[in-house]
Amino acid sequence: MRITAHRKAHFNAAHRLYRADWDDAKNMQIFGKCSNPNFHGHNYDLTVSVSGEIDPETGFLIDLKILKDIIKAEVEDYLDHKNLNLEVPEFKTLNPTAENIAVVIHQKIKAVLDPKFDLEITLYETPRNFVTYKGE
Amino acid sequence: MRITAHRKAHFNAAHRLYRADWDDAKNMQIFGKCSNPNFHGHNYDLTVSVSGEIDPETGFLIDLKILKDIIKAEVEDYLDHKNLNLEVPEFKTLNPTAENIAVVIHQKIKAVLDPKFDLEITLYETPRNFVTYKGE
Amino acid sequence: MRITAHRKAHFNAAHRLYRADWDDAKNMQIFGKCSNPNFHGHNYDLTVSVSGEIDPETGFLIDLKILKDIIKAEVEDYLDHKNLNLEVPEFKTLNPTAENIAVVIHQKIKAVLDPKFDLEITLYETPRNFVTYKGE
Amino acid sequence: MRITAHRKAHFNAAHRLYRADWDDAKNMQIFGKCSNPNFHGHNYDLTVSVSGEIDPETGFLIDLKILKDIIKAEVEDYLDHKNLNLEVPEFKTLNPTAENIAVVIHQKIKAVLDPKFDLEITLYETPRNFVTYKGE
Amino acid sequence: MRITAHRKAHFNAAHRLYRADWDDAKNMQIFGKCSNPNFHGHNYDLTVSVSGEIDPETGFLIDLKILKDIIKAEVEDYLDHKNLNLEVPEFKTLNPTAENIAVVIHQKIKAVLDPKFDLEITLYETPRNFVTYKGE
Amino acid sequence: MRITAHRKAHFNAAHRLYRADWDDAKNMQIFGKCSNPNFHGHNYDLTVSVSGEIDPETGFLIDLKILKDIIKAEVEDYLDHKNLNLEVPEFKTLNPTAENIAVVIHQKIKAVLDPKFDLEITLYETPRNFVTYKGE
Repeated sequence: MRITAHRKAHFNAAHRLYRADWDDAKNMQIFGKCSNPNFHGHNYDLTVSVSGEIDPETGFLIDLKILKDIIKAEVEDYLDHKNLNLEVPEFKTLNPTAENIAVVIHQKIKAVLDPKFDLEITLYETPRNFVTYKGE
Repeated sequence: MRITAHRKAHFNAAHRLYRADWDDAKNMQIFGKCSNPNFHGHNYDLTVSVSGEIDPETGFLIDLKILKDIIKAEVEDYLDHKNLNLEVPEFKTLNPTAENIAVVIHQKIKAVLDPKFDLEITLYETPRNFVTYKGE
Repeated sequence: MRITAHRKAHFNAAHRLYRADWDDAKNMQIFGKCSNPNFHGHNYDLTVSVSGEIDPETGFLIDLKILKDIIKAEVEDYLDHKNLNLEVPEFKTLNPTAENIAVVIHQKIKAVLDPKFDLEITLYETPRNFVTYKGE
Repeated sequence: MRITAHRKAHFNAAHRLYRADWDDAKNMQIFGKCSNPNFHGHNYDLTVSVSGEIDPETGFLIDLKILKDIIKAEVEDYLDHKNLNLEVPEFKTLNPTAENIAVVIHQKIKAVLDPKFDLEITLYETPRNFVTYKGE
Repeated sequence: MRITAHRKAHFNAAHRLYRADWDDAKNMQIFGKCSNPNFHGHNYDLTVSVSGEIDPETGFLIDLKILKDIIKAEVEDYLDHKNLNLEVPEFKTLNPTAENIAVVIHQKIKAVLDPKFDLEITLYETPRNFVTYKGE
Repeated sequence: MRITAHRKAHFNAAHRLYRADWDDAKNMQIFGKCSNPNFHGHNYDLTVSVSGEIDPETGFLIDLKILKDIIKAEVEDYLDHKNLNLEVPEFKTLNPTAENIAVVIHQKIKAVLDPKFDLEITLYETPRNFVTYKGE
């Protein structure tokens, strides 16, 4: 029986939308106030969705303690209270849009999650804007 | 890398569930108090979900300003603070159920959205009743 | 020991903001699109807050079944799926703003609630606009 | 035109995670504090999602009164204010994890729902942990 | 400058509404299905509200780490995943209504909080039923 | 008839908790990771609550368009997508804690609001931490 288990988490971070190979004027033209050189920030709300077969022995898809520990190590400890552009290696060369942050979170969790599971990431940048990424 | 970007919006409107080719008694029998001839109304909450490939230049699926402008023109300006039955052409002959409103919103946004994107509409008629439509 | 018990409820209704002694032009000037003569509508979310002493015998401030029945009779049955201007006697002569709807709900519940309790009404007209009325 | 209509519901229940063929020590080792022999409990939030073709006569996928009655009979009356382990036959031999509760709810609704519809169950055990089951 | 700082928390527990000096029939008559002898349960959502003067040195009312530690020790560790009637001393003789649980939480936090602060407890038993207690 | 009308708004910003007269080590000791010199950020949710008498002519406490314009000019345009420490004059010398941000928002709105109204500010720094300030 195939099921999906979802776990919510969150982190706070500063960022700016920005390409280093564009000057500030072009960054401002394309990214607007999101490109403020002094940064702005968000409370990011995250849903991590893991799909697979229910383990008939426990009735779990996955032990949620394992999933919580993965989210803490790979996402919360890595991104919370950080400046994404300055302090997170992936975003030194990658623009920290919600799309790209979701891709990075997917890659980091996928790397340590049992490969029998499928993984989907939902990331809210604000309560009204969010993205979903399945690694496809 | 295929991703979905979601944008929430809302509008308020009056409506009644009603077929002009049925009399009030039959409308009331089928649609109950939702068929009140004096209308009732809702705060409709909308999620517009657009799917496609991340643009490697910007890190965006779609510039959200473009999506916000489409939602404003095609949905908010068209439906907000309106009487759906009396003032919205599509619902002169189509019963304004949540299902049909979602279909109309999908058609209106699809008509102006870059055709490379897939589109899904989620429409909350109340906090407990909502519908999802993908145009399939 | 003085405590407040809160109970949430909701109803859907159509209305327009409007004074009968003003013409449509003046109504539109003062009330904007909320004065659309064809009506618009809302999902109203309501919190009824009752304050008093905990009954030491039951540990309740008030039996919630009693409070639910009062809210059903005085608010939900009276306002749900109605056109406030056309079908609710109080609003034949009173503009159905959120403020005035909260006052009417307070008066109707207060009239049947045990007078030993204080009463506060919180009414959401939209998720972003709401009012609080204590009957003072 | 294929659409999904969603209806939210909820129920409160006590449970413990537990296998009768394991002793308390092993249950505690695998299920942690969720295995407390004196039980703990949750407010379960449920979304029932039904998919199919819009009925062109009514504009409905399904009459929501029918769906509400099914949810009341099959879920709320069956599970609300119950001890899942002691009072619900399915969980005498099945561990009442969120995954298994979702499967049971799916089976019970599927058995009485018009077979032309597809069905998906989303069950929140807490605001941060939830599961989705499609019966696949 | 007087301000209130609020911190949200939650815990899950089983309980039954019940007086030991009444028989089951009377408990059922007064408390209904909430008196199920096999218990039921809730996700309790808690807001702890502390009022006082802003510390001009830090700009804090209270260091939130101190408040989080108090809530963890006095509420979460004490009540989470417990059977309130069987495992929490205060409720051996006190009916665990939302009102009484709020009073107990208020007393336990007040006992360890700096006495210069005022304290208010808001406790949600379900998303629609909640109580507020100020210790007055 | 005295009533309170509430209007929600939000803004995103970067900040760090920090006193310029303390070195980084002391800032880090007192403010922890909130003192990250590279900044972090939040989605701030704001509720502006205005109290006074209902205007019998309109049925409004205050025209919400006026209140929305004040919030836009004094809060959203002033704080949204900003670095509070570097770009907002009040926080050059004042630590941008939630408490102090609420005080600054209160002062700015109070300065332009009709003095017949009382004003309360509720500011969410995260979904679980928020403050309330009445200007007392």
